[in-house]
Amino acid sequence: MSSKPEVAFIGLGAMGFGMATHLVKQGYSVTGFDVWAPTLARFAEAGGKTASTPAAAVEGKPVCVCMVATAQQAQAVLVDGNLAPAAKALPQNAVILLCSTVPCGYVQQLAKTLADPQGPVRRPDLLLVDCPVSGGATRAADGTLSIMAGAAPAALENELAKTVLGDLADPAKLYFVAGGIGAGSNTKMVHQVLAANQILSGPEAMGLAVRFGLPADATTLDALLKSPGFSWMFGHRGPRMISGYQPLASAVNIIVKDTAIITSEARRAGFATPMTSVVENVLYTAVSRGFGGDDDSSLLRLYTEGAGTPANVDKETALKLVVDLLKGIHLASAAESLAFAHHVGLDLDLILDLCIHAAGGSTMLEVHGPSIVAVLRGQQPPALAETETLATVYENLAAAVDAAQQIKAPVYLGAQALNLLRLTLNHAKASPTSPPAAAVVRVWA
Amino acid sequence: MSSKPEVAFIGLGAMGFGMATHLVKQGYSVTGFDVWAPTLARFAEAGGKTASTPAAAVEGKPVCVCMVATAQQAQAVLVDGNLAPAAKALPQNAVILLCSTVPCGYVQQLAKTLADPQGPVRRPDLLLVDCPVSGGATRAADGTLSIMAGAAPAALENELAKTVLGDLADPAKLYFVAGGIGAGSNTKMVHQVLAANQILSGPEAMGLAVRFGLPADATTLDALLKSPGFSWMFGHRGPRMISGYQPLASAVNIIVKDTAIITSEARRAGFATPMTSVVENVLYTAVSRGFGGDDDSSLLRLYTEGAGTPANVDKETALKLVVDLLKGIHLASAAESLAFAHHVGLDLDLILDLCIHAAGGSTMLEVHGPSIVAVLRGQQPPALAETETLATVYENLAAAVDAAQQIKAPVYLGAQALNLLRLTLNHAKASPTSPPAAAVVRVWA
Repeated sequence: MSSKPEVAFIGLGAMGFGMATHLVKQGYSVTGFDVWAPTLARFAEAGGKTASTPAAAVEGKPVCVCMVATAQQAQAVLVDGNLAPAAKALPQNAVILLCSTVPCGYVQQLAKTLADPQGPVRRPDLLLVDCPVSGGATRAADGTLSIMAGAAPAALENELAKTVLGDLADPAKLYFVAGGIGAGSNTKMVHQVLAANQILSGPEAMGLAVRFGLPADATTLDALLKSPGFSWMFGHRGPRMISGYQPLASAVNIIVKDTAIITSEARRAGFATPMTSVVENVLYTAVSRGFGGDDDSSLLRLYTEGAGTPANVDKETALKLVVDLLKGIHLASAAESLAFAHHVGLDLDLILDLCIHAAGGSTMLEVHGPSIVAVLRGQQPPALAETETLATVYENLAAAVDAAQQIKAPVYLGAQALNLLRLTLNHAKASPTSPPAAAVVRVWA
Repeated sequence: MSSKPEVAFIGLGAMGFGMATHLVKQGYSVTGFDVWAPTLARFAEAGGKTASTPAAAVEGKPVCVCMVATAQQAQAVLVDGNLAPAAKALPQNAVILLCSTVPCGYVQQLAKTLADPQGPVRRPDLLLVDCPVSGGATRAADGTLSIMAGAAPAALENELAKTVLGDLADPAKLYFVAGGIGAGSNTKMVHQVLAANQILSGPEAMGLAVRFGLPADATTLDALLKSPGFSWMFGHRGPRMISGYQPLASAVNIIVKDTAIITSEARRAGFATPMTSVVENVLYTAVSRGFGGDDDSSLLRLYTEGAGTPANVDKETALKLVVDLLKGIHLASAAESLAFAHHVGLDLDLILDLCIHAAGGSTMLEVHGPSIVAVLRGQQPPALAETETLATVYENLAAAVDAAQQIKAPVYLGAQALNLLRLTLNHAKASPTSPPAAAVVRVWA
């Protein structure tokens, strides 16, 4: 146990608290800081030490984990906040593990600020690792997170950094991403394209199911989760969707923040995010209506409110239509996510492996992801065992959108995916063969 | 006056009542039918005759105008409703002027049904004209509507049809559209792409203005209407947006119906409607919340609710951002509308002329429409006096969407237009010259 370095941990929210207490259990001496005093008291009870400023927390610690909520908070606790910030107070050659989800542009700027000889910190010796995490509070507390780490080689190969990251992550889900500072944040961002879309596709699908007359219960949920419309997010949020949106596990405001990172970074990078922008606007409507603090499973309300008499659709047909809605949406979100990864120069094999096994996973990503990657690389897509073409996915999704229209049910994502599939089909008209479903990615690239 | 034919008029709603009483004033003998008895009584007071069934109304009349609300209603009053329908009761070689807004697919099916020797009507002698109208209740009552008429040549050249249409329309706005039955409905549909988008772009722009701290008053409205963000719809709805959504002039449910025609016909024709689909889903949300019967200026509520402290933006900057939002949206809706017209084989010069001078008009359509038509025809776009490129419109719109994001303001249409512009820019990368704004239409065609 004595081989474990002393660690400063800044930001003890739902995720940070679990991560920090897990490190305590692993034998680390962890000094925590948070602006919320009751959390500090809880952390002391859990065996941690506490400090009253970021600078005090990091004094003499060779490693500082930063797990605050936003780039603005990271900037404040590390560089220029009113409460003595951490960066200048760190010992020589210390490691900063920035685990917060922040824009690539921010963490690249931070690296420059830390090293800038005319800047407020002037510490080119510090080793910054850009290492956002994914997996939720339970996996944070278990030390089985997905972590996507990018940094300059010296930081990425630092033994202390590897030790701490190794103890926080599931060994199969600790990814060292090529591309330097910013590549970790870009990887998380690309993953969050899937997360954001699938946080909304579940409510959209369940809402349509309800309007078709299916009960919002475990039977309907199970049927959808066992279908090719499966997503990890729907599996995770679904049980709360059918039990009054309780308990609060992940607030709408959290995915709002991540979605804004995606679309603003997309504008900066010159990339289009038609799927995620739809999610973002629906989320802003939810926030405007006062739902920001509620569990995001409650987005179902936006789809079920004012539903009249259920449509006259038999149960089997209804389920098929809802599954086809999910399939179309998840195909389009997989394409948007992987095209974005390609656009910012990430390793597509790594991204695909990471996303399939993390919260962004879906059956459509697993089935069609390798083909989408092949199309992005200009290669022949691998032959699929199944004969699902772009036209098939389109026709099935069109039937779902058509049935939704009959009952004036909103299907924001379904309609968007349908239009993207249609645009691809029309541009592919000259092609002699029927394009595979993966070809939808040609809208982006 | 004795040269005016006797006319049967079925459907005396807001539009139909105005049209029918205008014909009475022009010296026609008009026999009206409507299911709503008080309307019939009012029509009698206005000098009309009345009938208790569609069949009774048309008996002996060489011309029947049908101005019911939907295709379902048209089918009922003409072919197979419970109340003795009209078609079989019409005299030999009578003209049916179907002025309702219906899908092209429906009116083509109706033509077949009327003539079918095995069908329920068996009247190949009837002359069906597909002639939807536009212009609102005031112009209906003035006899200055826009009318888009398509039919088989014998019907289109029929003197009685021409006389009645000529008396209902503004002479400069009576369009005889090539393409036979369905071309009139397709023309109206293409026009309604603009109408639907611009019914929503006004509230989206005014909502953003309010969130930027501008007052929802005549000063703000005037500034926007005098800008290149002008649309006819905003001019028409704007005054009601700033005066409590009163009086009720056009209910949300009306544009809901037209929007559903656009997107369902687009699916049938294999065309993508990314802009109109966004409108449709926002409208379904409005309907779900119980706003369907309210004036559509009240869509502003969806954008202003829950607005927090206004953003810290100076008045001039705020106005510029809102104008740029409108410009981007109207460019994209112009492109979607004209690309759809091209897709269904309509005369683009006629469509452009019609739309610029009707309720679908906007400054962006007038400025960039001719260039969009040129791009659709594979021609060099005409040189514009101004130097507005696709990149310029994109950058300005991106600034507006970015500013909206800072305050979590929904901009459904702005974000969609931005993504469509971005997709076009990325696909045009290989091009040596900076593409003109009109090039956005390449997303569709």
